[in-house]
Amino acid sequence: MVDTFEDLGFAKLDMSRSERTGMPETVYCAGKSKEQLAGILKAFQDKNCPVLGTRCSPEQASFVEANGLDVEYDAVSKTVVLTGGKKTELNGRVAVCCGGTADIPVAEEAARTAAFFGAEVERHFDVGVAGIHRLFAKLDSIREADVVIAVAGMEGALAGVVAGLVKTPVIAVPTSVGYGASFNGLAPLLTMLNSCAEGVAVVNIDNGFGAAVLACRILRGLQKHD
Amino acid sequence: MVDTFEDLGFAKLDMSRSERTGMPETVYCAGKSKEQLAGILKAFQDKNCPVLGTRCSPEQASFVEANGLDVEYDAVSKTVVLTGGKKTELNGRVAVCCGGTADIPVAEEAARTAAFFGAEVERHFDVGVAGIHRLFAKLDSIREADVVIAVAGMEGALAGVVAGLVKTPVIAVPTSVGYGASFNGLAPLLTMLNSCAEGVAVVNIDNGFGAAVLACRILRGLQKHD
Amino acid sequence: MVDTFEDLGFAKLDMSRSERTGMPETVYCAGKSKEQLAGILKAFQDKNCPVLGTRCSPEQASFVEANGLDVEYDAVSKTVVLTGGKKTELNGRVAVCCGGTADIPVAEEAARTAAFFGAEVERHFDVGVAGIHRLFAKLDSIREADVVIAVAGMEGALAGVVAGLVKTPVIAVPTSVGYGASFNGLAPLLTMLNSCAEGVAVVNIDNGFGAAVLACRILRGLQKHD
Amino acid sequence: MVDTFEDLGFAKLDMSRSERTGMPETVYCAGKSKEQLAGILKAFQDKNCPVLGTRCSPEQASFVEANGLDVEYDAVSKTVVLTGGKKTELNGRVAVCCGGTADIPVAEEAARTAAFFGAEVERHFDVGVAGIHRLFAKLDSIREADVVIAVAGMEGALAGVVAGLVKTPVIAVPTSVGYGASFNGLAPLLTMLNSCAEGVAVVNIDNGFGAAVLACRILRGLQKHD
Amino acid sequence: MVDTFEDLGFAKLDMSRSERTGMPETVYCAGKSKEQLAGILKAFQDKNCPVLGTRCSPEQASFVEANGLDVEYDAVSKTVVLTGGKKTELNGRVAVCCGGTADIPVAEEAARTAAFFGAEVERHFDVGVAGIHRLFAKLDSIREADVVIAVAGMEGALAGVVAGLVKTPVIAVPTSVGYGASFNGLAPLLTMLNSCAEGVAVVNIDNGFGAAVLACRILRGLQKHD
Amino acid sequence: MVDTFEDLGFAKLDMSRSERTGMPETVYCAGKSKEQLAGILKAFQDKNCPVLGTRCSPEQASFVEANGLDVEYDAVSKTVVLTGGKKTELNGRVAVCCGGTADIPVAEEAARTAAFFGAEVERHFDVGVAGIHRLFAKLDSIREADVVIAVAGMEGALAGVVAGLVKTPVIAVPTSVGYGASFNGLAPLLTMLNSCAEGVAVVNIDNGFGAAVLACRILRGLQKHD
Amino acid sequence: MVDTFEDLGFAKLDMSRSERTGMPETVYCAGKSKEQLAGILKAFQDKNCPVLGTRCSPEQASFVEANGLDVEYDAVSKTVVLTGGKKTELNGRVAVCCGGTADIPVAEEAARTAAFFGAEVERHFDVGVAGIHRLFAKLDSIREADVVIAVAGMEGALAGVVAGLVKTPVIAVPTSVGYGASFNGLAPLLTMLNSCAEGVAVVNIDNGFGAAVLACRILRGLQKHD
Amino acid sequence: MVDTFEDLGFAKLDMSRSERTGMPETVYCAGKSKEQLAGILKAFQDKNCPVLGTRCSPEQASFVEANGLDVEYDAVSKTVVLTGGKKTELNGRVAVCCGGTADIPVAEEAARTAAFFGAEVERHFDVGVAGIHRLFAKLDSIREADVVIAVAGMEGALAGVVAGLVKTPVIAVPTSVGYGASFNGLAPLLTMLNSCAEGVAVVNIDNGFGAAVLACRILRGLQKHD
Repeated sequence: MVDTFEDLGFAKLDMSRSERTGMPETVYCAGKSKEQLAGILKAFQDKNCPVLGTRCSPEQASFVEANGLDVEYDAVSKTVVLTGGKKTELNGRVAVCCGGTADIPVAEEAARTAAFFGAEVERHFDVGVAGIHRLFAKLDSIREADVVIAVAGMEGALAGVVAGLVKTPVIAVPTSVGYGASFNGLAPLLTMLNSCAEGVAVVNIDNGFGAAVLACRILRGLQKHD
Repeated sequence: MVDTFEDLGFAKLDMSRSERTGMPETVYCAGKSKEQLAGILKAFQDKNCPVLGTRCSPEQASFVEANGLDVEYDAVSKTVVLTGGKKTELNGRVAVCCGGTADIPVAEEAARTAAFFGAEVERHFDVGVAGIHRLFAKLDSIREADVVIAVAGMEGALAGVVAGLVKTPVIAVPTSVGYGASFNGLAPLLTMLNSCAEGVAVVNIDNGFGAAVLACRILRGLQKHD
Repeated sequence: MVDTFEDLGFAKLDMSRSERTGMPETVYCAGKSKEQLAGILKAFQDKNCPVLGTRCSPEQASFVEANGLDVEYDAVSKTVVLTGGKKTELNGRVAVCCGGTADIPVAEEAARTAAFFGAEVERHFDVGVAGIHRLFAKLDSIREADVVIAVAGMEGALAGVVAGLVKTPVIAVPTSVGYGASFNGLAPLLTMLNSCAEGVAVVNIDNGFGAAVLACRILRGLQKHD
Repeated sequence: MVDTFEDLGFAKLDMSRSERTGMPETVYCAGKSKEQLAGILKAFQDKNCPVLGTRCSPEQASFVEANGLDVEYDAVSKTVVLTGGKKTELNGRVAVCCGGTADIPVAEEAARTAAFFGAEVERHFDVGVAGIHRLFAKLDSIREADVVIAVAGMEGALAGVVAGLVKTPVIAVPTSVGYGASFNGLAPLLTMLNSCAEGVAVVNIDNGFGAAVLACRILRGLQKHD
Repeated sequence: MVDTFEDLGFAKLDMSRSERTGMPETVYCAGKSKEQLAGILKAFQDKNCPVLGTRCSPEQASFVEANGLDVEYDAVSKTVVLTGGKKTELNGRVAVCCGGTADIPVAEEAARTAAFFGAEVERHFDVGVAGIHRLFAKLDSIREADVVIAVAGMEGALAGVVAGLVKTPVIAVPTSVGYGASFNGLAPLLTMLNSCAEGVAVVNIDNGFGAAVLACRILRGLQKHD
Repeated sequence: MVDTFEDLGFAKLDMSRSERTGMPETVYCAGKSKEQLAGILKAFQDKNCPVLGTRCSPEQASFVEANGLDVEYDAVSKTVVLTGGKKTELNGRVAVCCGGTADIPVAEEAARTAAFFGAEVERHFDVGVAGIHRLFAKLDSIREADVVIAVAGMEGALAGVVAGLVKTPVIAVPTSVGYGASFNGLAPLLTMLNSCAEGVAVVNIDNGFGAAVLACRILRGLQKHD
Repeated sequence: MVDTFEDLGFAKLDMSRSERTGMPETVYCAGKSKEQLAGILKAFQDKNCPVLGTRCSPEQASFVEANGLDVEYDAVSKTVVLTGGKKTELNGRVAVCCGGTADIPVAEEAARTAAFFGAEVERHFDVGVAGIHRLFAKLDSIREADVVIAVAGMEGALAGVVAGLVKTPVIAVPTSVGYGASFNGLAPLLTMLNSCAEGVAVVNIDNGFGAAVLACRILRGLQKHD
Repeated sequence: MVDTFEDLGFAKLDMSRSERTGMPETVYCAGKSKEQLAGILKAFQDKNCPVLGTRCSPEQASFVEANGLDVEYDAVSKTVVLTGGKKTELNGRVAVCCGGTADIPVAEEAARTAAFFGAEVERHFDVGVAGIHRLFAKLDSIREADVVIAVAGMEGALAGVVAGLVKTPVIAVPTSVGYGASFNGLAPLLTMLNSCAEGVAVVNIDNGFGAAVLACRILRGLQKHD
């Protein structure tokens, strides 16, 4: 394996990452100018590589579309997908659960990322522990997934409660939803890290993308064994 | 009402607090020398006032007993009770729940404080959310209490889950049980403050005593209406 | 009791919470799109359930009104009330005190929430401890309430001082009012958690709503005993 | 599935967790008295359940052994294993890597936990990024594992560097090894949560156990597909 | 003014500080070996300079006495005074107030420092705001002082309440007395910094010494005007 | 002394504070609506009380002026002065020093507050320790003041260096000037609280007003002795 | 050497700093009004001193240019250079590396500052450790520099990895690039401070300027030895 | 260059680091068992490599000596040196300054490390800014050094003041000396990171070793140019 990259001056595109890590390319759009983003996407489109962009602002998306790139934009999750190239398939299912309506943007980022990588995705939104019967109503379905992504802000208790009820890996995503002593997501982050239930690991606050990538790495392992 | 106090030099005993706040006297033993503690208890014994001491070390307790004071000491909760005087009665029940074995000292401090103040107390220990069926097994009983005290360390999710299942006030006590990112109780403190469920309020980390006092103030209100 | 919910896709409305927790429905408006909010309120209006919305922006309120929903909006507390349905009554009084003019939005959120739930509400605004005679002037009235809600930013000392002067439960609400080392409400939050006075519990920063719900749970307990 | 537990008074043993979560029983020994620990282990031995105890002090271990329980104690990882019962087997391999000698206790806790649960375990200790050639020397072997556990204190960069080099899931364990601005493990915790590399999730500081449980949940998924 | 110092190798004694700052010499004993402390005190004794040592452990004090230095040690405040030389006199009074018995060591450090510097000192210990009538009972006396030092741990509200009641400067000393969310004195530190009352300034946690030095600088200013 | 206040509904004006604390009235404008501010100022103007408003936005100032109130507004310090009534005089001098140009708004708030209260004020701006000769050039003048206010952001070392060079009380004001690890003024706040030099006390971040009030309380003490 | 400054009222220009510290003049533009900035630059231009301004907003730059000052502005790094005067030359090379595209503004601030001071500058942008082969591809060139500046946000591992691979001093610049648990740059700051590799020192978050000044001080030392 | 290491099982000794980084070997002793430490030192002694051990406890040192290793131990700095092999020489001088007596252990760690690496070392201890004349008395000598290491706890202002007075690189070492709001060295760490003076970079709290290594990397650069 030879690691290669294409040097755009402001960015070194990691053209061998897909080979090295087994995942299609992705771009973190925040902090890039819209011209930089368009340049990066263009380079991948020229090589017929599908790309997922996350944290893509409506302004960036409009600019990219206006520059003739063939993308689909989802405003809730702020993801943009450059279609084309061969699609990857993963043989497995990811259940994406979230605590409340306000967590949906992060949960949707996770769901769309997992789908882009080829996973079957099942959404269970608004199943927070304050009304725990809503979670129990979906439990049979959640238990059948290969991996569970649990997204929650405020107190963030969802991940621990779920992990105590299923046998699969649980990836916890704290969100910055809340106010006051949530300290922009610190509260659910700490809750999830201190989960008494076994089988939980945590990604950065609002990092639905990272949770989905990990979930898909897990699914790919399954695939080897099919 | 005339506020009075007895001045021991190092402490001004608040002899009218009972009258003013409706609760028997209590002493926070930590940070007091064993001689100071004995002096304070002696002053109350001389007036035939029952007193509850919290955060009382075994050394303090031994010294106090050796000095002829008529006390009962509980090593788990580190509480000491100076018996004698008329006993208060509160017409109501407090359910004290805790997440794990390691939380028992704090839960027991709450339970003994509430009992000292005259409440009926019911203990539900080791009902943490990681094995949520243990909580559900006790739910009917918990729902019948007038106030619930929920004690939990690590992730601290117990209080929010309980508050979503009962109609009564829930007083949450975070504990310093845990390690690493629990940051000595900061994690469950933030969890409890950010509870999505309604009807929860929080006291200081490890403050079983404070939770019980508040519970008893609530019970006393009930009494007026009996 | 059968727990039910109505699934709007983006939200699972907890139609049995009122039954389960004994409180009318409430909606946390922040983080919801104005279309989502209108959809939620519509679902409740169709079932003739009264609803209280908190953290409702003027834009959300205008949109909701423009969509024909029968609501009353208060711009100071950012609360919106969907009238209709049977009104709940609680037989008891809540005293809402606050430290300064800038704390009024939070105090008013508490006051309006308690009133919506059926409590008698009495407001004592601008009674901060820096000019403690203002508090003493209101003390007789405060002492007659069944529950006290103490709202304060900056140093947050009000709750502890009040709790030392009354016999009733005190629910402390730290606010984000202040600057510099108030760290957006961390300072009064810590002050209130460390209160030397007995009988205080604390809710999240700026959470006037949560304080009122807890107060009303306490009042409802009284009702059982009437 | 019927959830059951055995109530020892101070602890409700979750006898159905193995059934529910698919993992043998484990006990967190810290914060339990040695008598409580022995009582818990005895209850499991009586049912012929193998148990893993973590955070077990030498004093606890000695007491337990002196009370006739059939355990093996490892002083480095502070783990104790109650042998007996049927052994679980997981068809897969976990690579446990750590940054420095001082991280070995946590890495060893992870390794022994994974082995107890039936995984094949491979240790790569002292491969920190300050001398990155040591990591590269082991890379082929690490790439062949099904899951990688990366344990590191101080700056905690190991997990991110590894995740950029492998295709498998990476579970990151920050340790409290370090001083000064490591703030007892906060520094590597934040490093790992902010990893630029994809496919990393994080558990609590020093939580080798939790990382191993998650790794084994992943392996068990593989098993279904074998 | 020529600034001079005596170089002991491990310490440069600031022999002109008294001249430069108008205060007699002081030594911060913590972190110095008992031999270093004795050496420093000896150098001052040889020049007939009175010195105050703070944070002096009983072991340091014993060693210093055993080495023939003419000192007085107070175990509560951990202060040691090297007598001899001309005594300074300040024409003014400092009121040292503290919230509870456990704050006395810090309050006493302040009181003894002020007395060493020549101030008239008046102690009002155990006047915390949880029983505010105790403070009011002493108010006339406190109002007559030239400077007030308010020492308090836990919630730290004393300084702000006092400052609202007097016309003099108030120097606030937070203490590390408390537990849990006091975070070793952070809570009262923030409370005092956010005081709504005017005329308060704050020194480091447990820094009774620093408060007294500032108080005496204020008194010395008065002296110029006598 | 009878404490009185005028109740405007949203504010209880503390009409006896001047009598009680010896300072003219002041108003903290931030967080008040412009209508509330105008109402408060009108009430004081009607009683011919001079008032100082701090944190007054240009919008508030314009509104107040447009409503016929007789005020002077300074945009740098965001102070507004309601003239009229008898002017107070304090017989003493305050030196206001600041570290850099960006600290001037806070320093100017201190200077104008002290002047409003009747002090003689002397400004030494841009004397930060990075070019310490600028401070030494002004040292003779600073040493002649009765009180020094030292305002500094970023590293905040100015207060400690000054306190080591003068004999007078030094009031330290940390500012939020800086970026990154200044954490909005936390860095200079901690620096000042940990000052090795004697005679420093600290007020809240950016609280030039509070520093000036304390300085003037000190000056008033001098006056008694004239 | 006589230290001199020019007093503009709001700023004391440190006209001898160049002599004292050996570096040309620089101005921190943030927090200064555009009029103040123009005044400062004018004073230096009148003395024919070249000046570098950092954190210069586009608005400030436009104003300064419109006022006839002879400056060059770079919008990415927000630096402005007042040309003219004799140019300094340093005989040495600085390698400026950064982790990702979003770190370029800070890296460019470092690069332009070093170039202004006379260093030879070599840029290696987008060489983050998540794709470590990009760094290795540049390693030979990086090893030939006299000083390395490593700029990175998010996890900030770049500095430690580089320092383990080169023999030269490494100056680490954490950036505020990231989200969630990066806490505005706290995460990479802690990472860099805890670097296991030897030879790293850290400057403030986003302080590319400070890193470059230190690098140039190092280069100047080399010059003495040429 | 071929990177090699010797694998002791618990540690992979980096035998080529000296070649790669140009510095002799060093060992961080804390967190290693005394047997591990002796094993590591033995391996280096067998290859005739000189080694410096830091954070070496007296117990570790005694054990190592008792096992026949040829080491010199310094109890103040907790450093141990394994002599033998060829000594490195660096042509340059490092000035190690510290603020107070209690900072000497850290300063001495820096001084001994630099000396071990071949630098000429000059100590200026107890030159804190509270008595700034002590620093000025040493300034000519400090200015002649090639690099300055400034060690300070409490407020940590020394580094910034020195950097404003010299032309050489300044490496700042915050120490954990202090109490209360020093938060174990956080205060001086932040002070140093926010230094207004140019040319300062910071290492971890108490990391005298790291400062010295960086200083020696700088000196080695000089050597190339000699």
